Amino acid sequence: MERLPGFRDFYPEPLPPSEPWSADLRQYIFDKWRTVSRRYGFREYDGPPLETLELFTTKSGAEIVGQLYNFTDKGDRAISLRPEMTPTLARMVAARERSYKKPIKWFALPQLFRYERQQKGRLREHFQFNADIVGETDPSADAELAALLIDSLRAFGLTAADFVLRLSSRNAWHDFFVARQGAPEAEYEFYQAIDKLEREEPAKTEEKLRRIGFSLEEVRAFIEQGTPTRELAGVMENLAARGLGEFVKIDYRVIRGLAYYTGIVFEAFDRKGEFRAIAGGGRYDNLLKLISGGRVDLPALGFGMGDVVLGELLKARGLVPSFTTGLDVFCLIEAEELRADSLRLIQSLREAGFATDFSLMPAKADKQFKRAQELGVSWIVRLVPNTEGTLEARVKNLQSREEKIYPPQEVASLLRNGVK
Amino acid sequence: MERLPGFRDFYPEPLPPSEPWSADLRQYIFDKWRTVSRRYGFREYDGPPLETLELFTTKSGAEIVGQLYNFTDKGDRAISLRPEMTPTLARMVAARERSYKKPIKWFALPQLFRYERQQKGRLREHFQFNADIVGETDPSADAELAALLIDSLRAFGLTAADFVLRLSSRNAWHDFFVARQGAPEAEYEFYQAIDKLEREEPAKTEEKLRRIGFSLEEVRAFIEQGTPTRELAGVMENLAARGLGEFVKIDYRVIRGLAYYTGIVFEAFDRKGEFRAIAGGGRYDNLLKLISGGRVDLPALGFGMGDVVLGELLKARGLVPSFTTGLDVFCLIEAEELRADSLRLIQSLREAGFATDFSLMPAKADKQFKRAQELGVSWIVRLVPNTEGTLEARVKNLQSREEKIYPPQEVASLLRNGVK
Repeated sequence: MERLPGFRDFYPEPLPPSEPWSADLRQYIFDKWRTVSRRYGFREYDGPPLETLELFTTKSGAEIVGQLYNFTDKGDRAISLRPEMTPTLARMVAARERSYKKPIKWFALPQLFRYERQQKGRLREHFQFNADIVGETDPSADAELAALLIDSLRAFGLTAADFVLRLSSRNAWHDFFVARQGAPEAEYEFYQAIDKLEREEPAKTEEKLRRIGFSLEEVRAFIEQGTPTRELAGVMENLAARGLGEFVKIDYRVIRGLAYYTGIVFEAFDRKGEFRAIAGGGRYDNLLKLISGGRVDLPALGFGMGDVVLGELLKARGLVPSFTTGLDVFCLIEAEELRADSLRLIQSLREAGFATDFSLMPAKADKQFKRAQELGVSWIVRLVPNTEGTLEARVKNLQSREEKIYPPQEVASLLRNGVK
Repeated sequence: MERLPGFRDFYPEPLPPSEPWSADLRQYIFDKWRTVSRRYGFREYDGPPLETLELFTTKSGAEIVGQLYNFTDKGDRAISLRPEMTPTLARMVAARERSYKKPIKWFALPQLFRYERQQKGRLREHFQFNADIVGETDPSADAELAALLIDSLRAFGLTAADFVLRLSSRNAWHDFFVARQGAPEAEYEFYQAIDKLEREEPAKTEEKLRRIGFSLEEVRAFIEQGTPTRELAGVMENLAARGLGEFVKIDYRVIRGLAYYTGIVFEAFDRKGEFRAIAGGGRYDNLLKLISGGRVDLPALGFGMGDVVLGELLKARGLVPSFTTGLDVFCLIEAEELRADSLRLIQSLREAGFATDFSLMPAKADKQFKRAQELGVSWIVRLVPNTEGTLEARVKNLQSREEKIYPPQEVASLLRNGVK
């Protein structure tokens, strides 16, 4: 029986051949995301992996359904596995916003799902770090969020030579569009054309733009000029004050495909341009009102950063650490009559916080020793009867090769004082 | 728009009224499960939340479908959200067992899903700590697993006065069944009757047993006597050697409903009997062979412990800690001309590992101070111009009420040395 196409199993390291994703790497990524979020004062939340289909179509329109892992449940509800976290966040905040001081700074690490029929070999799930700020219109919030994004990537050892955050603004493009007399009904079409600028043939973009009264030339000139809006200048200044100026640049080619962005938008890319966007986000000041049916009207902004692109980038840059078993001690049991006392010793080590393993079954001492080495432990402990007929614990430090003798009941506390 | 019935949102603490589950409590539980598992040398793994329906029906029979969150995907595959982790574990181990030394000791913290149409108000998902050992037939593996289960509960502050692990054995019941000439085709029916013994009217159980040639009296006498099998005696001895004897007892009323258990089975209960089983598991030596179509034949055993019953028990016993924001420092910005320098200071604190927050917008100093207190920070830091025209950092320890003055660029390292 096989796993479903587009899904990953997460095995422990060292990985079997042809299993590229380990549970250790996933946990390593999650730990960094959590640590940096907490440093920034963001609090963790989560929602269900399943939501009503309506939650997603309300936000993104009926055309989203073609990309969803959606179905009808046994209670005849139209439901879907979540393709993104923002609608859940908006629903949760709208339901309970009175309980939280503004601005709300929250993060989540949800698994997200998409089902695109044609995409062979492509993953249908990934984990995505989501961070959002709700209740603040000032660009200082955009800067705080951008700084979190930058520091989240730096936490993995990525530098300004590895990635850049490209900042843009829907407002800048809106002003451009209005100043050149664009027809309001063509505005979203215009954004869509800008969004595809880098990925499409110029002739095709040109044709799209011409149809709604624009030229590729004037669009390119606007991008080239890249004059920051007041809000963008504020964000740039704020990030420079933090010492993060080298990680960011104005780039109006970024506009984000989704309809609901309302202000500053941004995407992080690897500098070499080898990968898809590492992260992306922006302001969505109208979404809470939409999701809550007008009941709650709060400005908001957020970003998403997926584990797949990030993991590929870390691998390519040699930034994935080598994972160990995490074991500290191996208790070697040289004779079965020592097992009961050895079990007591193992229990005391584990209770003292040492990750401790041993052979469940009788095995030759050299085989146990070999296993201890494979597991990468720091110490091997074994009980040996001494001449007085009592037991002593021999503790070997595998680094220094030194062996010391302790009373068995003192091993755990002695090791703890010596090392931790 | 509302969340689906039977699902939980996980908000940050302090919780809004009528939201009983927080992301903080969930993370607290996960952290303990992970920590204790690692101490025992268990490695983390995970699989997809969706699997083929066949994986679950192969293990549990077609009747399981009535309880599943199953559907047909856009590629016409019959699939299901996972109701339990063991089939995924069996699939993963069967696929890659050659890459791992035996015994394999793995754990996972999956979210599991069940859809039972009639169960109003009952949760349709929970998170479940799963730990399994694959590749060892000896009862020493059963003891190691039972010890992990016990220590996982002890990690939350639960004692032998709070819970007990009830140990039983399918083999004991099998021997009983065979010794009394039970008809082989009635064996599973017999186990099912034993499984319901505690929850059903005695008359009903008696009737069930009589139909297959047994009396309630002889069954009760066997339970009462509770003579441990050799394997159970081995497990009891092993746990006693670890000093865990008081957490466990032989109790033949436990038999586990599922068909696939083959040896020792067990369930952990709160001593007061207020809750459903906290955890349960046992040996399933034939499952890997079944799931792999005969390709891989390895003995295995495991348990599951859900977050819902455990969380309810911890709440009832006053063992849920009070969660804080986790913030260390609040940077108070008394004038806007100090913002750029304050941002630099905040960045240095965050980079030094301090969880640091500040007001994104200009606010009165006393309002900022109040906010800092609400957030429960340890220090308030603010920049103040001194008489020489440079900036000094005033660092107030909110515990001692002491305020010290440092050069701004040294605050982070000084705080670190003073506290960590």
